[in-house]
Amino acid sequence: MRVCVVGCGAVGSLFAANLAQLDDVEVWAYDLTRDHVDAINENGLRLTGAGDVTGHVRATADASALPPCDFGIVATKAMHTESAVAATAHAFAEGAVASVQNGVGNEEAIARHVQRVIRGTTFPAGKILEPGVVQWDVKGETSLGPFEPSPASVGEIERLADACTRAGMPTNAVPDARPAQWRKVVFNAATNPVGALTGLTHGRVCERPDLRALVTALVDEGKAVAAALGIVLDADPEELIDHAARRDVAYDHKASMLQDVEARRQTEIDYLNGGIARFGRELGVPTPLNDMVTALVKALEDSWS
Amino acid sequence: MRVCVVGCGAVGSLFAANLAQLDDVEVWAYDLTRDHVDAINENGLRLTGAGDVTGHVRATADASALPPCDFGIVATKAMHTESAVAATAHAFAEGAVASVQNGVGNEEAIARHVQRVIRGTTFPAGKILEPGVVQWDVKGETSLGPFEPSPASVGEIERLADACTRAGMPTNAVPDARPAQWRKVVFNAATNPVGALTGLTHGRVCERPDLRALVTALVDEGKAVAAALGIVLDADPEELIDHAARRDVAYDHKASMLQDVEARRQTEIDYLNGGIARFGRELGVPTPLNDMVTALVKALEDSWS
Repeated sequence: MRVCVVGCGAVGSLFAANLAQLDDVEVWAYDLTRDHVDAINENGLRLTGAGDVTGHVRATADASALPPCDFGIVATKAMHTESAVAATAHAFAEGAVASVQNGVGNEEAIARHVQRVIRGTTFPAGKILEPGVVQWDVKGETSLGPFEPSPASVGEIERLADACTRAGMPTNAVPDARPAQWRKVVFNAATNPVGALTGLTHGRVCERPDLRALVTALVDEGKAVAAALGIVLDADPEELIDHAARRDVAYDHKASMLQDVEARRQTEIDYLNGGIARFGRELGVPTPLNDMVTALVKALEDSWS
Repeated sequence: MRVCVVGCGAVGSLFAANLAQLDDVEVWAYDLTRDHVDAINENGLRLTGAGDVTGHVRATADASALPPCDFGIVATKAMHTESAVAATAHAFAEGAVASVQNGVGNEEAIARHVQRVIRGTTFPAGKILEPGVVQWDVKGETSLGPFEPSPASVGEIERLADACTRAGMPTNAVPDARPAQWRKVVFNAATNPVGALTGLTHGRVCERPDLRALVTALVDEGKAVAAALGIVLDADPEELIDHAARRDVAYDHKASMLQDVEARRQTEIDYLNGGIARFGRELGVPTPLNDMVTALVKALEDSWS
């Protein structure tokens, strides 16, 4: 089978390099960062840290070079979903496309260009060290399920999940992926902006009682919105947050939003806290703290211009 | 009369340089920044911007060099009040000492070392451009009144207010300085941390509707605490905030807390939002947003260590 990772940043690279270990999977990567693409084609895509793997991946910044693929795995930042999928959709005319991105609204954007869509959530995390080399900070599970309005088949979802699992990225095919997705959205919205605004790693955020209380207050707003949507979370985000704060898990991990702030890149705040606040407004659930951190992070982005 | 400005940063310099214009006032400055002290003694203390003034001020970093003074004007950052007044108190054995600082709790600290204390609040603002040179960003009024538990006499307060007014720093002697002080504390606590966390000037904070809404939410918590203290604000902080945002007033002013963050100096958050939250807890007034920005700014400071 042939898989194309769309957006080969830290998370996309974890999927691409691991899937490329399998004999029965051919892996392509579509990414607009030329030196990363060139390095991957020259030396392979290398992961280091939680796992040391080098994958032979065919990378391109030219969407027209992509062959027909059985699967797409979209791993761009949420604000780039629409343009990346519009450019690559031709490769998935006969395939199914999964999101493994942060936030809410990605599957809706994919479904505007592709027929069979997989709602996905992934917990592994890392960061690009240099072109072609990615540090794998955190291992974790991935959940894949149908995107309800425009679903891939159960068979397709199981086939992709099986390949990921065999490749060393444990992945569950589930009938409803929304509980896992909201668990992660609530997790990220409670921790990412706090790291981004303070410059602290996940572990240091959690060990300050004042910040940990703020994280809990943000979690509580997210839980209330999820409940109003009729979604029963499959695990308590609080437990995940404390687990990740352990020194042997993700104490030293800088949230992707903090990585964005340090690089003065646009963040995913609109799809995390902004998404929770948007659903909250529609459903009549107040989210004053999510509104507040959304405003602060968007204004911080504004200060760079 | 002889006045010593204790802490000759931006605000202290505005008082020192202007008071030094008067023939009947001798001005001393106590400050621990050696190159600033040396520059003042060599070339005078120069203000530029909203007013262009050079004052002949005797500056020292050695508290024992201070002669007996009729008045002290304490203008250190709030966290340095205690140590600065402890060092200089001998000069005020026969004098009265005013605070023109930010936040709550300064007069209490002064009164631990000095007998007659003046509660003060000042609106002028600026920033140090280089040793001996201060940019005067914003003109404004000062209010001086008795510190209730350990007050200066009405005559002393009027004499200091008169000197400041004649020197070009319009100052009111008032029977109760708490309304003006809380107006400024509420103003500062609503705007300083928002500027500090986003990097935006006062005007840019106010023109973003999402941030302006956050500012208002912080103002509302501050007003509720002031009301619970029995203090009737003498003007609406909202009007002051909008006035300051005008291009001809303080649109381009970076809040002192933002200046601190950019220089990676400890901020006054504990005496602004932290002070409001502390009174709120004592009085049973909830202040979740003040708690939140306090936690974020303290954690940001923590990230530098």
